[in-house]
Amino acid sequence: MEIPLKMSEVLQHEGVVAIVTQNNTVPHLVNTWNSYIHITPDNCLLVPVGGMKQTENNLSQSQQILMTLGSREVDGFHSKGTGFLIKATADFLSKGSEYDIMKAKFPWCRAILKIHPQNITQTL
Amino acid sequence: MEIPLKMSEVLQHEGVVAIVTQNNTVPHLVNTWNSYIHITPDNCLLVPVGGMKQTENNLSQSQQILMTLGSREVDGFHSKGTGFLIKATADFLSKGSEYDIMKAKFPWCRAILKIHPQNITQTL
Repeated sequence: MEIPLKMSEVLQHEGVVAIVTQNNTVPHLVNTWNSYIHITPDNCLLVPVGGMKQTENNLSQSQQILMTLGSREVDGFHSKGTGFLIKATADFLSKGSEYDIMKAKFPWCRAILKIHPQNITQTL
Repeated sequence: MEIPLKMSEVLQHEGVVAIVTQNNTVPHLVNTWNSYIHITPDNCLLVPVGGMKQTENNLSQSQQILMTLGSREVDGFHSKGTGFLIKATADFLSKGSEYDIMKAKFPWCRAILKIHPQNITQTL
């Protein structure tokens, strides 16, 4: 699905992104920065991966993730401040052209998380 | 447990906070802002609640939550930017002195989330 323009606008501002996976029935929560996220031409999100070992393990059980991001500096429905909730599937990739693009920007990354949004909701 | 000084420092900067609860085995992710969090003298965190109906339902099944917050503007282990992962239990409160304190600051709040940290990890 298409990435909303306002979400692209949020990603121009720095902020903490949350990514939730499941280890069986136990949720696992990790973070990245807004500025680390790259939007692909096919409307996926790429995130450089340093650690995220547990996230990688969890994705081998279920690819389903939840993700939030936002910025206080972008207008929301009512006032300054907006955020998005993204339901998606995600893969780990450690080779290929998308990995190479991210590796050039983030030399420390051991892999990338390729996120395929299924549903994007502006929450505020 | 005591709230780390660096975490208090993070809360001086604006940012997106993530809070994860569980609906049976399905994780649920909501957000608040760093600036909305109030630290109590007994080292709990108070969050004003507008919506969060599903979070409230989930807490009636299990009080266990995960929470992350951070700021790019506070020094982490290696460079600028730090974040915290908090394992906690949480209650909804819609009366009492702590609710009154928060209601005075956030007139729109229908309740507060009182968060009792069990484990706080600086992740970056």
